[in-house]
Amino acid sequence: MKALEEKILTCGTVAEGNVLKVNSFLNHQLDVAFLCEVGKEFYRLFKDDGVTKILTIEASGIGVSCLTAQYFGCNVVFAKKSKSSNISNDLYKAKSFSYTHGTENDVIVSKVFLNPGDRVLIIDDFLAHGSALAALIDLVEQAGATVVGAGIVIEKAYQQGGEEIRARGYRVESLARIASMSVEEGVRFV
Amino acid sequence: MKALEEKILTCGTVAEGNVLKVNSFLNHQLDVAFLCEVGKEFYRLFKDDGVTKILTIEASGIGVSCLTAQYFGCNVVFAKKSKSSNISNDLYKAKSFSYTHGTENDVIVSKVFLNPGDRVLIIDDFLAHGSALAALIDLVEQAGATVVGAGIVIEKAYQQGGEEIRARGYRVESLARIASMSVEEGVRFV
Repeated sequence: MKALEEKILTCGTVAEGNVLKVNSFLNHQLDVAFLCEVGKEFYRLFKDDGVTKILTIEASGIGVSCLTAQYFGCNVVFAKKSKSSNISNDLYKAKSFSYTHGTENDVIVSKVFLNPGDRVLIIDDFLAHGSALAALIDLVEQAGATVVGAGIVIEKAYQQGGEEIRARGYRVESLARIASMSVEEGVRFV
Repeated sequence: MKALEEKILTCGTVAEGNVLKVNSFLNHQLDVAFLCEVGKEFYRLFKDDGVTKILTIEASGIGVSCLTAQYFGCNVVFAKKSKSSNISNDLYKAKSFSYTHGTENDVIVSKVFLNPGDRVLIIDDFLAHGSALAALIDLVEQAGATVVGAGIVIEKAYQQGGEEIRARGYRVESLARIASMSVEEGVRFV
């Protein structure tokens, strides 16, 4: 998505530690008009897939998921992160490791909100190592629902998460794919 | 907002410990079409107030804030909760106590996203003791920006938060105001 690449070049900055800061439009301040355009692009890509629900994970995925869901006419479910969730018969649970924070979280969703008939589009702001996305796929499959694919705003394509998940047969559509980035040379796209 | 009261009566349940569960449309699954109607109502209430930004707090406030922001044509900033944020010159910080979780959090926002010229509408899903709302007001005022008011989806009007904040001179518009609730008798509105 050309407009997204331009937005990243204009508004994003690369910080030490392999961090792309896109706080000004994606994960602290949310540029709502721009994220509607992102949502329209996800709709263009997945409109023929019978999506009944969008699944994302708190917190940064929620805004873009809600704006996208309008075009599909479906609801959003956001999985919650919990360091110490009680085991419950009412929850699906998967493990996710955050490389950013160095912590492992349980990712949980109430069973009533994912059903066997659901065709689920997973949306998230970033894909890098793929741990969060793998956990979300796990939750959908625990429910016996169908993963129609994943819509990712920004993929760090030089890390292995996206390729691993595509190799498992899932459709992953990333609107911007970063080939390399550094403080000195900035961002280069695939 | 009559449709919201009906939604709460239809889809909400009262659980032990003074908990109103509205997971099916407001804070785990998000009923996007319904939350657009909530957003239109906030717009009707605040459309003449020159709103330049919506401020909310992660995670449950983000969805309704993004859907509302479309009507105002403005961006959303969500404050982040942090148990142990480093002191930084780049952040505004306030304290909030969660009665639900029994924890005190720092609530932080990057200084670059709140400016003295901003006219800020604060949006949140719930208002009870008012600790989160007071923290958000504090952040806006640290920035020298103007609080035009607060748009709350559900206020537990039998707790003191809303009245305390109104008594300080702020406009608080709650779309549903709960007078009382209990497992036995359900929800009654003001």
